[in-house]
Amino acid sequence: MLAKRIERLTSSLVRDILAVAQRPGVISFAGGLPADEALLQVDVNALSPDVLSDAMQYGPTEGERALREQVARRMATIGLQCSADQVLILNGSQQGIDLVSKLMIEEGTPVLVEEPAYLAALQSFKLFGADLRTVPLQQGVDIDALAAVMPSVNLAYLTPTFQNPSGYCYSEEERKSVAELADTHGVCLFEDDPYRELAYDTPAPVPMVSFVQSAPWIYQGSFSKTLAPGLRLGFLIAHPDLIPHLIRLKQAADLHSNRLSQLIVRQILEGGELEPHLAKSLPIYRERRDAMAAALQRHLAPYASWQVPAGGLFFWVKLNAVNDTLALMRQCLSNELAIMPGVAFMAGGRDEGYIRLNFSHAKPELIERGIAKLAQLVSEQQKV
Amino acid sequence: MLAKRIERLTSSLVRDILAVAQRPGVISFAGGLPADEALLQVDVNALSPDVLSDAMQYGPTEGERALREQVARRMATIGLQCSADQVLILNGSQQGIDLVSKLMIEEGTPVLVEEPAYLAALQSFKLFGADLRTVPLQQGVDIDALAAVMPSVNLAYLTPTFQNPSGYCYSEEERKSVAELADTHGVCLFEDDPYRELAYDTPAPVPMVSFVQSAPWIYQGSFSKTLAPGLRLGFLIAHPDLIPHLIRLKQAADLHSNRLSQLIVRQILEGGELEPHLAKSLPIYRERRDAMAAALQRHLAPYASWQVPAGGLFFWVKLNAVNDTLALMRQCLSNELAIMPGVAFMAGGRDEGYIRLNFSHAKPELIERGIAKLAQLVSEQQKV
Repeated sequence: MLAKRIERLTSSLVRDILAVAQRPGVISFAGGLPADEALLQVDVNALSPDVLSDAMQYGPTEGERALREQVARRMATIGLQCSADQVLILNGSQQGIDLVSKLMIEEGTPVLVEEPAYLAALQSFKLFGADLRTVPLQQGVDIDALAAVMPSVNLAYLTPTFQNPSGYCYSEEERKSVAELADTHGVCLFEDDPYRELAYDTPAPVPMVSFVQSAPWIYQGSFSKTLAPGLRLGFLIAHPDLIPHLIRLKQAADLHSNRLSQLIVRQILEGGELEPHLAKSLPIYRERRDAMAAALQRHLAPYASWQVPAGGLFFWVKLNAVNDTLALMRQCLSNELAIMPGVAFMAGGRDEGYIRLNFSHAKPELIERGIAKLAQLVSEQQKV
Repeated sequence: MLAKRIERLTSSLVRDILAVAQRPGVISFAGGLPADEALLQVDVNALSPDVLSDAMQYGPTEGERALREQVARRMATIGLQCSADQVLILNGSQQGIDLVSKLMIEEGTPVLVEEPAYLAALQSFKLFGADLRTVPLQQGVDIDALAAVMPSVNLAYLTPTFQNPSGYCYSEEERKSVAELADTHGVCLFEDDPYRELAYDTPAPVPMVSFVQSAPWIYQGSFSKTLAPGLRLGFLIAHPDLIPHLIRLKQAADLHSNRLSQLIVRQILEGGELEPHLAKSLPIYRERRDAMAAALQRHLAPYASWQVPAGGLFFWVKLNAVNDTLALMRQCLSNELAIMPGVAFMAGGRDEGYIRLNFSHAKPELIERGIAKLAQLVSEQQKV
């Protein structure tokens, strides 16, 4: 009775972990939640009653014109020239993954993904029947592997800036190489860029799609990490040939995005309030990243290796002698600690002994306690 | 390069009409917009800062627990018993159509639809490859035709209450007959119910799915027509076997719905403010329906026939001697009047001389002027 694709809906493992992670008393490194302290405080009194009242009626599928213009203006400062007509407002960038899946993927469509990759993108691509072709991304991207896979795919999904889960950030040279490969083989490049603004050391290089000459491309960003996930607001920018299809797919999906959120974000961008907000948020994130780096060094150094991420929300930790990260995760859960097993992010499904640790949500003192507990459990696991 | 389904994305005719319809000076009967005067006025001062602040973080895919409970409670009063666990909060009920398409429809899946039917549902079903099997619904549902089609389909999509576009409302007897047919043939019944509360004469009969004994079923409702479309908030209630799949599909589509809107609607439901709001809105809608009924009688009676709808937002008008409603629509547009050609709602694509006229958005004096103009254009068209 149900469509065949439903068999490919991945199990609710991650939902289960996140549900447990929210129990009081559990220290959670499992989700990808922004720091509560860094979330936007909506000033409802700043919303004029007239504008609010107007926002109650149906709106345009593409999104509010003024917001699309603000996004285009902001992208130009980041290094991606585009017109407001190329901008589509989304319910968070997860929706962009759904729309691009509909645009490009049917049963058997070959799609290049990094391994590891954002698990909810893998979930969506699989749902639509993609044949996933992986390129390893552990302590750096393997451009040769990318060059070998690129000729055989229709779509390449990449998260070149502070990737979830690996934290890796492609250099400008690497971005140019990938764009050139996409041009050479006419592959549609889909750049997912939600973490760009969470840069703790140096600013991120310009978007990869800005180097594309002739290939079709789609770029997406989010206000979930910079302002607040509860607003469910992201945006997509696409090659002029693709944007009309994506707008129609958005219309069929939900007519248009929430207008209250669009109004709030538009006012923030027009008022130049995003940069000051980031200036207040980034020190909170940097402090937590540094706290986790120190705690890992203190407790986990004998058992694991990692790179300190220059941005984003995660440490991607390779355990020396643990091969079953699902078992470790269960062991952690029964000790009031939540982590994400790396295998969830591997399109190939191999467990290579990685775990993903989120550093943005727990306060520094909990990070210290959690990592100490993790080291104890890892050392016990190794002895088994 | 693009997925084959993109070829099936219907043309932007309707988007074009609606774009023109929004030009100043145009009298529009084309869209399905609620009366501006009936829209919710959000009282932002009623939102407590604590609750607002909490709503900024990621939330549950299913929707806020308290809102799901309010929806389940409200459904019980309408005649559909369900638990809060069966409720999934949506970005408007258009999203439910997308999720159910993903759940049930693949290339060639036979789906029963009324003819005419809600055009954005037809669009979504076609996008996923449905083989649409139609049952006529002009001045009443043809239960024999329904009985003939039911054994050959997997899914039956029906809008039994003040349907868009026909305005038809199934009697309780007809609802029971359809539910029995679904049970007999094990067909999943998908009841779309956004207009229930807009009943101008007598309350609508209980939902059709409440008569289902054994068949799988999905019911959906919306806050777009009762409160405000800009909130993008609807809900879906499903058989316990289906709801876990639908929740996972929602997660893959956009993680969860906007929390600000959920918070606003939850406060309205908890405060018992929906009924008083409807008590203020319904007279506005009733007045406009009656104004259009009178104007039609005054101007269009020689050229057309129609039933006065007992609810919803539309008149479905059969023109006696116009066979090309697209040409009539273009003629109207060049005379600053927007109507919807009935052919857009026919899965079979035959033009049977129907047009859809929305009565909720234009004020009574504009309804009078617009219908007079329409009658003039129809009479000219007949002479050609």
